[in-house]
Amino acid sequence: MPEITYDIQKNYGVLSEEKSGWKKELTLVSWNGRNAKFDIRDWSPDHEKMGKGITLTREEAEKLVGFLQAAFAQEG
Amino acid sequence: MPEITYDIQKNYGVLSEEKSGWKKELTLVSWNGRNAKFDIRDWSPDHEKMGKGITLTREEAEKLVGFLQAAFAQEG
Repeated sequence: MPEITYDIQKNYGVLSEEKSGWKKELTLVSWNGRNAKFDIRDWSPDHEKMGKGITLTREEAEKLVGFLQAAFAQEG
Repeated sequence: MPEITYDIQKNYGVLSEEKSGWKKELTLVSWNGRNAKFDIRDWSPDHEKMGKGITLTREEAEKLVGFLQAAFAQEG
């Protein structure tokens, strides 16, 4: 498997934390040297291991915020 | 591999769409009969095949909205 490189350029905050110390975080990550994207993912305490996650462009992230706010209003 | 069951209870919107018709969507999904959670994931046009994604609790989703809004303000 080709090596995946990543550069965590910003860490915006922790969404939740497991007892193991792994945290679900919103970060800005450049994958394989490409333009940095928003990234929601589980990370080990030292950020050396990663779990499943997704990347979002700015446009996708802006839509997501709108949809979530509508969902919160709907769910109460 | 044990079978994974899922029930898409709500579809809040499409974040982006590939030429193939696959869409990245925000949905409310019950996985394996458990409580429904927010879910950000790629889906085939008929929602029969799924790509990588993540689930978020309401609490995680609320934090995410706050972090993204701060990020947008920061990035300009």
